[in-house]
Amino acid sequence: MASLSEPQDDPDRLIASADPDHPANLIPSLCAKFWTLGWVTGTGGGCSIRDEDLVYIAPSGVQKELIKATDIYVLSLAAQHPSLQHRTYLRSPPCHRPSQCTPLFLAAFTRRRAGCCIHTHSQWAVLVTLLLEQAPPGSRTVFEINNIEQVKGFAKGITKQGNLGYHDTLRIPVIENTPHEEDLTEFLEAAMEEYPDTYAVLVRRHGVYVWGDNVHKAKTQCESLDYLFQLAVEMKKLGIPWISDIPRVAPERP
Amino acid sequence: MASLSEPQDDPDRLIASADPDHPANLIPSLCAKFWTLGWVTGTGGGCSIRDEDLVYIAPSGVQKELIKATDIYVLSLAAQHPSLQHRTYLRSPPCHRPSQCTPLFLAAFTRRRAGCCIHTHSQWAVLVTLLLEQAPPGSRTVFEINNIEQVKGFAKGITKQGNLGYHDTLRIPVIENTPHEEDLTEFLEAAMEEYPDTYAVLVRRHGVYVWGDNVHKAKTQCESLDYLFQLAVEMKKLGIPWISDIPRVAPERP
Amino acid sequence: MASLSEPQDDPDRLIASADPDHPANLIPSLCAKFWTLGWVTGTGGGCSIRDEDLVYIAPSGVQKELIKATDIYVLSLAAQHPSLQHRTYLRSPPCHRPSQCTPLFLAAFTRRRAGCCIHTHSQWAVLVTLLLEQAPPGSRTVFEINNIEQVKGFAKGITKQGNLGYHDTLRIPVIENTPHEEDLTEFLEAAMEEYPDTYAVLVRRHGVYVWGDNVHKAKTQCESLDYLFQLAVEMKKLGIPWISDIPRVAPERP
Amino acid sequence: MASLSEPQDDPDRLIASADPDHPANLIPSLCAKFWTLGWVTGTGGGCSIRDEDLVYIAPSGVQKELIKATDIYVLSLAAQHPSLQHRTYLRSPPCHRPSQCTPLFLAAFTRRRAGCCIHTHSQWAVLVTLLLEQAPPGSRTVFEINNIEQVKGFAKGITKQGNLGYHDTLRIPVIENTPHEEDLTEFLEAAMEEYPDTYAVLVRRHGVYVWGDNVHKAKTQCESLDYLFQLAVEMKKLGIPWISDIPRVAPERP
Repeated sequence: MASLSEPQDDPDRLIASADPDHPANLIPSLCAKFWTLGWVTGTGGGCSIRDEDLVYIAPSGVQKELIKATDIYVLSLAAQHPSLQHRTYLRSPPCHRPSQCTPLFLAAFTRRRAGCCIHTHSQWAVLVTLLLEQAPPGSRTVFEINNIEQVKGFAKGITKQGNLGYHDTLRIPVIENTPHEEDLTEFLEAAMEEYPDTYAVLVRRHGVYVWGDNVHKAKTQCESLDYLFQLAVEMKKLGIPWISDIPRVAPERP
Repeated sequence: MASLSEPQDDPDRLIASADPDHPANLIPSLCAKFWTLGWVTGTGGGCSIRDEDLVYIAPSGVQKELIKATDIYVLSLAAQHPSLQHRTYLRSPPCHRPSQCTPLFLAAFTRRRAGCCIHTHSQWAVLVTLLLEQAPPGSRTVFEINNIEQVKGFAKGITKQGNLGYHDTLRIPVIENTPHEEDLTEFLEAAMEEYPDTYAVLVRRHGVYVWGDNVHKAKTQCESLDYLFQLAVEMKKLGIPWISDIPRVAPERP
Repeated sequence: MASLSEPQDDPDRLIASADPDHPANLIPSLCAKFWTLGWVTGTGGGCSIRDEDLVYIAPSGVQKELIKATDIYVLSLAAQHPSLQHRTYLRSPPCHRPSQCTPLFLAAFTRRRAGCCIHTHSQWAVLVTLLLEQAPPGSRTVFEINNIEQVKGFAKGITKQGNLGYHDTLRIPVIENTPHEEDLTEFLEAAMEEYPDTYAVLVRRHGVYVWGDNVHKAKTQCESLDYLFQLAVEMKKLGIPWISDIPRVAPERP
Repeated sequence: MASLSEPQDDPDRLIASADPDHPANLIPSLCAKFWTLGWVTGTGGGCSIRDEDLVYIAPSGVQKELIKATDIYVLSLAAQHPSLQHRTYLRSPPCHRPSQCTPLFLAAFTRRRAGCCIHTHSQWAVLVTLLLEQAPPGSRTVFEINNIEQVKGFAKGITKQGNLGYHDTLRIPVIENTPHEEDLTEFLEAAMEEYPDTYAVLVRRHGVYVWGDNVHKAKTQCESLDYLFQLAVEMKKLGIPWISDIPRVAPERP
């Protein structure tokens, strides 16, 4: 007869692994890296990884460069109620509160089948949203840039093959910020609906959510995007427009 | 009969611990981190931790990234004379002088019951004070910013529950610099009186003092503030005001 | 009778070495360093080393700070068909694709006898190309800077002795970007023809290719160039021209 | 009978020490730190330490973050001919050339009794020299800043007691650059004559030389100066003057 005292029922087995690529080990090492990049200053930002049905999330309000595997929450995606309001956790660390980003991470996992979602407070992301005029009511603010090699770091979208091309325009929708992070969820989901191929959503005066099919893709897309945000701010200082019409010097291949 | 040669009277036992979270070990590791952030360049800036009645302080004039536990001063808060002019130390490292920041750190400990106080020379803090016009005599210069997610990294104040909200305005009072750092104390204390809920005071053309209930809160509030100072400087370069009137897209929760 | 199962035929012996200066070990450590410099963000940029006839190349689409020796491709320079369209590899790592930069690296190795070639997506390189007006058809866009000490970090050219002098003008030709990185090859080679002494070619809105006789020279020239690109962007912000006519305060030595 | 094969005559004993604070070990660790600060990019910049009569110098043209103790030159200050043109070394590493900075380092050691001299190519130093108008013939270009706390990181001068005060003006003379670094020596020495209390000399479009009585003072003065150069460039971008007339809020102490 199985009981909670048996090893297979010990929630801590979900986060105990010697493999550095296990999500419970990878989230701490990624967060430490993100801290040095200025993405998770203070206790801002975060990172979540999905492995099949299991979702691993860093707790709320912690110094992100100091997280340990034992700080990680684990939940089952299938076991969540559709409204996502009341969540049950397979494993909860003592002395922590769940991340307010949880419903936003879950949106990337359930609506895009993402394997990893990163939320940064990067100043470049915030400055880009400050440089974009707010769209009139009923329309959408969008960050757009083209003819920069680094846009090729982005997949075309979940419904398409391959990555963006050099001449393609990368479009990242912007949503307005809300006082409570959970309340962003419906706006994030609406932006996902409107931009079915986007892998990121900017939050005005707040930061950005970036996801990908797996950790590799989420991280490299987040790096490429942060690069483009920084470049865009510098271009603005130097009076160079984000969208240009570059003559093509070589034909596109099929 | 107890004598100074017995272990319990050895002042070095106050700083000898294998625990990386012991204040005598934490101050060196924090200072090394602060050096890479550009907060304690040269021998500028510093950090002090209070554990109940004991106060741990780094010495004056040292390279902050090289501090060792054996460099740390220890004093008893209760044993200090109210005027704070003549201090007695439970432990003084050989070959060092006490930090000129000591009375300022003590002000945070005695007047705010802080558990940690950080002093940085961050260029962003200095630039923010340079961008603020000096207030007319009798009034106070204040740094103000609102509608930026990172302000949520600050507690509302010692007399209030919870953290600032997204739409709240973070206000950090500015005091004028003095030739001798100890002479800042009365001005720092006056600013604390005037802004009873602030966790930081800017010093014009000098830097910032930030504190918190414990090391975690002091460090994350200091990081959040430095983030906001850097963002504010970039906003100024791009012509974006620090205070805005953002329409609310979702209701505040109770 | 030798067979593929014998050690001397094992392709992995080409990348197995305990020497940290072996190309298969050096590429990973260099790429990790380049990642911290912001040169190979996302999966952009790369690095290739030539040791006599053997060429070592990092794979396409990988996180450059995480590369291991076992990820490295090896090919024989002599065994490549002149058209360079169909390449054969002495060793191919499983689960990777060859770098799209391969024909560009090979151009540096075959046309300049370079020992190492570095490709960065440095934002400073991209910004410099954005600040340079596109030359009229039939002429060449060139980045030019002089009277900066750091230009002495560059060799005068493959046909000349010694390094550039302080008063010399460093000239880096710019080529237009193409949708597919391989298609840059003919433009890179044309720029090499036109500037027979250059050790670098800028790619508009993309980055830079820098090479040298060996790893030391490629890396230090790439660092010096990135320093000059960053300086040039800051000079532009401050209204200082890149080319100046400085009176000579001391005679040139023979 | 002593011979070169006996230990006491082995030049390598001059650089063989297990003490991390031995100059032959300290120069490599300092240079690695300076590389991350952007002070010794490419092979630019350098560092020399004097211990009594012995002078330790890094070689020319090497990657400064990779220096090892075995790369260090050692010479006797007393054994140098006054003209400093022909130098003899107690120890020369194989495969290297002596640094072109040698006579400039020696000037700090002989004329100021410095214990350490650091030469950086910091972009902030270069930009400051570019922002300063060249003085008319016969007069001296000088970088001046005051009323910034970090100026207190500087000693008042070799002939004076204590450090600069907050209201004091830090003055760093600028010399014009020469095609050959050795040729800077006479100009550096002239600036030392003219500014007998300076601990640094800027070299236009090149960088800065900073020294101190010992390694601690040279490094912390160099950090403080680089901080002030960066701040000065940012102040210029924001339209804030380097020299101001600040009303004193507290009396100077004796």
